[in-house]
Amino acid sequence: MEIKHILIVSPMHKEIEALLKTKNVPMDKEFRFHTEETVTEQDYDWADTFVSFKRPANFRFGNIKWVHSFGAGVDKIMKNIQWKEDVLLTRTICSFGEKISEYALSHLLRDLQNHDKYTDMQENKIWKEVAPIPMKEKKVVVFGTGVIGQEVARSLSFFGVNVYGVSLSGKQKEYFKEVYSSEGEGYYQAISAADYVINTMPLTKITEGIFNRAFFNALENAFFINVGRGESVDNGALLEALDKGRVRKAVLDVFPEEPLPKEDVFWTHPKVMVTPHISALTTAEDGLDCFLDTLTNIENDNEIPNLVDLKKGF
Amino acid sequence: MEIKHILIVSPMHKEIEALLKTKNVPMDKEFRFHTEETVTEQDYDWADTFVSFKRPANFRFGNIKWVHSFGAGVDKIMKNIQWKEDVLLTRTICSFGEKISEYALSHLLRDLQNHDKYTDMQENKIWKEVAPIPMKEKKVVVFGTGVIGQEVARSLSFFGVNVYGVSLSGKQKEYFKEVYSSEGEGYYQAISAADYVINTMPLTKITEGIFNRAFFNALENAFFINVGRGESVDNGALLEALDKGRVRKAVLDVFPEEPLPKEDVFWTHPKVMVTPHISALTTAEDGLDCFLDTLTNIENDNEIPNLVDLKKGF
Repeated sequence: MEIKHILIVSPMHKEIEALLKTKNVPMDKEFRFHTEETVTEQDYDWADTFVSFKRPANFRFGNIKWVHSFGAGVDKIMKNIQWKEDVLLTRTICSFGEKISEYALSHLLRDLQNHDKYTDMQENKIWKEVAPIPMKEKKVVVFGTGVIGQEVARSLSFFGVNVYGVSLSGKQKEYFKEVYSSEGEGYYQAISAADYVINTMPLTKITEGIFNRAFFNALENAFFINVGRGESVDNGALLEALDKGRVRKAVLDVFPEEPLPKEDVFWTHPKVMVTPHISALTTAEDGLDCFLDTLTNIENDNEIPNLVDLKKGF
Repeated sequence: MEIKHILIVSPMHKEIEALLKTKNVPMDKEFRFHTEETVTEQDYDWADTFVSFKRPANFRFGNIKWVHSFGAGVDKIMKNIQWKEDVLLTRTICSFGEKISEYALSHLLRDLQNHDKYTDMQENKIWKEVAPIPMKEKKVVVFGTGVIGQEVARSLSFFGVNVYGVSLSGKQKEYFKEVYSSEGEGYYQAISAADYVINTMPLTKITEGIFNRAFFNALENAFFINVGRGESVDNGALLEALDKGRVRKAVLDVFPEEPLPKEDVFWTHPKVMVTPHISALTTAEDGLDCFLDTLTNIENDNEIPNLVDLKKGF
């Protein structure tokens, strides 16, 4: 496929434009840079390629042949639209596995190394050993065994963690001791002894609300980390699980409404840590690099590992 | 060497005795279990093997042929005594590399993932991205390139961290981009751009006070982690470095006097985290397993990787 006219719509467009000058880009490309407020219908007609985090309200396919998402999740690009079958959709996953691994690992280790207990003891000048727990003694269940989930599993496995996976297909993958299918509730038994549950799944019709009351009731004192999508969690069920001790702590990076509204109970919940959707932040440079790599793959008819399966939604 | 009479002196001796029943131990061994308060001179004469964290006040070599330290550091066993040349000294390092790696990594990641900033923001219900910094962008200098330091380097390298080493010899080792000799001040220039400095060195005459004013003056806004020995640090110089911003944060697990006295300024210093010498805690099981492995090696004339070089002191 030949690409000539690239339309980039992003609040970071000035930074991206400046960075672009430092990259090797084939000379035959033309770029237009816009924000959601300034992009017009004429731009969509001009473009063969559209690059953005989400779909602007005035979006139309025009002459667009390829849409590239600056995010890993494409739900904000695909929802409520009849996708044109011959338009490619790709997403940014290039360094997200590493980023999400480091985010998740930071919270596991802070917990296993008793940082918060030691901070409390320091405040009271108490010198008392509370043995850190080696990672290899723990069982972690990762939801999502794609590029991101697998990278999380790879880094945890390095430390000897017992990593299990849950995916739609239940297909076995490297770095997981076992992968279970998320269909039905058959996998609940298998994950009941999880010390940590990490959700890395995209939002699709199947993953919406997958972490419901029945799921949380299968857990015992688990630590829940959500870096996937907020809509995958039934928040009422999560709050109940926190109360009952089914979940002993939740680290939430994603929410159904972002920014998280001021009145949301998660902000002040003593067992919840809120972070503002930063576990796989796309910097302008990351986003641009991933886009340019994808451009090269598309123009050279290479395999496109970050191509979205329109039926699956990721 | 044949071992018959094993004298174990430890506040955990009851736990060790119970655990011993679950292990495979050759039938010809006899054990005595004591605390520092109950061990007598007759016990030292009976024993061919002495096992403890430190040397009791009434210690004598008697018929002892082998001393095994439950700790990685043997300074509390070797100091102020003329060591009998034909007495083997071994130490517990079996799983300390992994433990210290997880301790150090937990503090690096908490810092790079901005946990404390996000906790503050959560308290104020502020939704604001502060991009986590990927580990691969950071430079870490590890003091000590032995079994422990090398394991720290191995785990950091896994994430692409740029790891440099400092050792007495300056001998190049795997997982370090470069190892510098600690002799003189020549290496200061090389480490001046360090984002993190991790001390894993044992206490010897050479490492005592090695982190002095001149050393700290070579740093720029570094994060200092000490899991080696407290006596390696000139604490006045460290406090000055914290004031000046040469060191932006210190995580200290070891101190010249332990428990850390209540009046010590580190307890309340806003830029210091104190932990009570737990980065490589020997559980009864760890200590026993490492001792039994060493026993097997000694009895079978195998290589003894945890044998102490009496001249070097580690």
